[in-house]
Amino acid sequence: MARNTQVSADHNAPRITDILANFLVMHPSRGWSDTVDHEAHRTFFNWLGCAVGAAHHEAADAALAAVQMLQPAPQASVLGRAEKVDMASAALINGITSHTFDFDDTHLKTIIHPAGPVASALLALAEGLQGTQAITGRQLIDALVLGIDVSCRIGNAMYPDHYDRGWHITGSTGTLGAAAGCARLLKLDVQQTTMALGIAASQPIGVREQFGSMTKPFHPGAAARAGLMSALLASKGFTASPRALEAPRGMMQTVSAKNDWTEITHELGERFEISFNSYKPFACGIVIHPSIDACSQLRAKGVMADQIERIELKVHSLVLELTGKKEPADGLQAKFSVYHGCAAGLIFGQAAETEYADDVVNRPDMVALRRKVVATVDNSIDEASADVTAVLKNGKSVHIFVEHAIGSLQNPMTDAMLEGKFSGMTNAVIGVERTSTLMSAAWQLGGAPDVAALVALARP
Amino acid sequence: MARNTQVSADHNAPRITDILANFLVMHPSRGWSDTVDHEAHRTFFNWLGCAVGAAHHEAADAALAAVQMLQPAPQASVLGRAEKVDMASAALINGITSHTFDFDDTHLKTIIHPAGPVASALLALAEGLQGTQAITGRQLIDALVLGIDVSCRIGNAMYPDHYDRGWHITGSTGTLGAAAGCARLLKLDVQQTTMALGIAASQPIGVREQFGSMTKPFHPGAAARAGLMSALLASKGFTASPRALEAPRGMMQTVSAKNDWTEITHELGERFEISFNSYKPFACGIVIHPSIDACSQLRAKGVMADQIERIELKVHSLVLELTGKKEPADGLQAKFSVYHGCAAGLIFGQAAETEYADDVVNRPDMVALRRKVVATVDNSIDEASADVTAVLKNGKSVHIFVEHAIGSLQNPMTDAMLEGKFSGMTNAVIGVERTSTLMSAAWQLGGAPDVAALVALARP
Repeated sequence: MARNTQVSADHNAPRITDILANFLVMHPSRGWSDTVDHEAHRTFFNWLGCAVGAAHHEAADAALAAVQMLQPAPQASVLGRAEKVDMASAALINGITSHTFDFDDTHLKTIIHPAGPVASALLALAEGLQGTQAITGRQLIDALVLGIDVSCRIGNAMYPDHYDRGWHITGSTGTLGAAAGCARLLKLDVQQTTMALGIAASQPIGVREQFGSMTKPFHPGAAARAGLMSALLASKGFTASPRALEAPRGMMQTVSAKNDWTEITHELGERFEISFNSYKPFACGIVIHPSIDACSQLRAKGVMADQIERIELKVHSLVLELTGKKEPADGLQAKFSVYHGCAAGLIFGQAAETEYADDVVNRPDMVALRRKVVATVDNSIDEASADVTAVLKNGKSVHIFVEHAIGSLQNPMTDAMLEGKFSGMTNAVIGVERTSTLMSAAWQLGGAPDVAALVALARP
Repeated sequence: MARNTQVSADHNAPRITDILANFLVMHPSRGWSDTVDHEAHRTFFNWLGCAVGAAHHEAADAALAAVQMLQPAPQASVLGRAEKVDMASAALINGITSHTFDFDDTHLKTIIHPAGPVASALLALAEGLQGTQAITGRQLIDALVLGIDVSCRIGNAMYPDHYDRGWHITGSTGTLGAAAGCARLLKLDVQQTTMALGIAASQPIGVREQFGSMTKPFHPGAAARAGLMSALLASKGFTASPRALEAPRGMMQTVSAKNDWTEITHELGERFEISFNSYKPFACGIVIHPSIDACSQLRAKGVMADQIERIELKVHSLVLELTGKKEPADGLQAKFSVYHGCAAGLIFGQAAETEYADDVVNRPDMVALRRKVVATVDNSIDEASADVTAVLKNGKSVHIFVEHAIGSLQNPMTDAMLEGKFSGMTNAVIGVERTSTLMSAAWQLGGAPDVAALVALARP
């Protein structure tokens, strides 16, 4: 995790995006010569003839048949809301929301968040197919395992070069995972599935510069939508290169200098990458997790905030480098403060999205406690561990060493913890009772006769 | 054009796409351990909680508002057909059809086909906005010039490295051009336009391995759709990085090692890249064009096929390397045959899509004539030129030297030629009369009070 591979980069690029935006807004209408304006008409004219001319080509027929599968509301649900939209848009929005809190699953080998693209596409497709055919929970779980296997294996093959050069690997491999899962759900044959993967291979989504903006969660959403549409297109006869992934000018070699093909073929069908999936207990960067975990354990041992003289925290240098913000002003800054994390762990025993609300970050007891955290660097401690000693006002001290934080592969969250995390997010949106029914339905999904029943429960 | 830059590539990759497709189709339901299956439920469970939890986040509100702008049929037209679809799907399909014949425009500096992504997005958006506001032809032409300027300037900055490493530059820069044009059409302000470009920057479309499949024309279509949606999202408050294009982990540095920023800033608003746009007179690769042009000129001088003893053709070695197929079996192969091209030029005086129909390729007089073409390499002749001598049965000979083929920047197609090309494609689709009215409307677009009138003419 402490890898510091650097792909060379130009840090002094002019503000091109801004320059172009100003140009687009400010340039006057017809602010060019008649020759240019005539060329614009010629360009439009020629384009129009080409488009009308190919109106009945088989590519047009296939694409039209695919988009005609999209129906307006009420085709598929926006989870947690009353609105319904077409299934491609539902895949987009549910992919966005599931990654908005940065609280979804993580395939630690690649830092892919695999469910966002795949599950969002599958659930929207399953609901969208409702009139035509009922999709069982088993079919959905099967497609989820297989879709995630495809995106994570492709990620394994390209990581870390692909990530280092700037790709948000969740979106760039997610289109393929979503297409793979949807192909399975649609029961496409091998030829059609090859085409679905091929069409998806032309649509890697997402660059890391977007981190911190809404376009970060847009990546899994757009990947879900693109993967779903790729499968629909393939089901209607749309074609792609059968070597779109691996060919010299195929996707993988275009977006990564590292491509270890054996990561895809080795133990395919025997080892499943979903086994290496993990879930965050805390709504912040993973390097803070051991410290929060340790402080939660202090709390569980009966240590109270007002007893504290100081908290001695020893961590790897990377932890302070990434999350050393001492006086976070709001929730967003608090996500980069191991000090706030420790205070939340001790006062609340958790650090969910609620503990990153601006008012919680500025609560006097939280501010006071985080100022009592004395952090020192100790590189003999692994970056995935934390050593915490609470020195109490009565002179006693309590020591906790966390080797693997809760939520790590070595120390996974229990199902009960996942339920606590789930309801902590959903109670306010769909209510406590509905949350409880929805959780039961989700646990039993593999045996459900029709996925649509679960989707109905995820609405207010 | 004869550049042979090679990015290193692995030509021996296993057939990953095929392997994964087989896996996806053949792997049995629940073909894994209970532990894996439980992990699948945990993955789904966690994803679902996250999605429901963020249902009312401002990102969800913005995305939902944007997709709710998509209405089912009859929002926007599929050009040349009776069907209407939502505007994002119309942008997709019209982008596909306009590039299906490979007969659209070419920005020769970058080999970008700029109109496909930009015009397809603009026309669909203009029609989609109809109920809300009428879009004038002037607004559309303005947005077309500016959108094309953005995609081609970004292309200039990254070309050739970006293309060499495998990107289909039409799709990868096209999303940005489409977003730029749509932002202008929607009258977004600078901040929103920056966001539109930013969202688009996470969605470069297309790899070159797809050439020869339907996914090639899918690239401008998908770019049109993605660009249009990026602008809609920005109009509803969706955010992206304001440095999404140029930052070290922004789009341009992620997809290209070459980034000449001055290509974007130099003479911005003074020089317009649409001025360097060109239109293909012949429905085949550009290296054959001088030879076809020369043979068309022979025909114009009265030379008839049955007078021909042989045609002596002298061309640059590249021409025969790329298009040296002597006995093409069908239309697709004929596109790589300078011999067929010469025969079409002499017999038909043109080489449109109709001259690449399988039955025309195999017509006895065409086969006989192409066999009379004797091609020799002469590297003193530029690859953009051709030297043709028709040696007649009566012993006379007629010589034509084409320095710059018709359709080149030096020798552009006239408006009348563009009309011939247009009607050659559209007469069969929307009829002769409708074609004639549509052409007039397209030439007069800059003065049209409402774009919708033109769109109506482009339907049968």
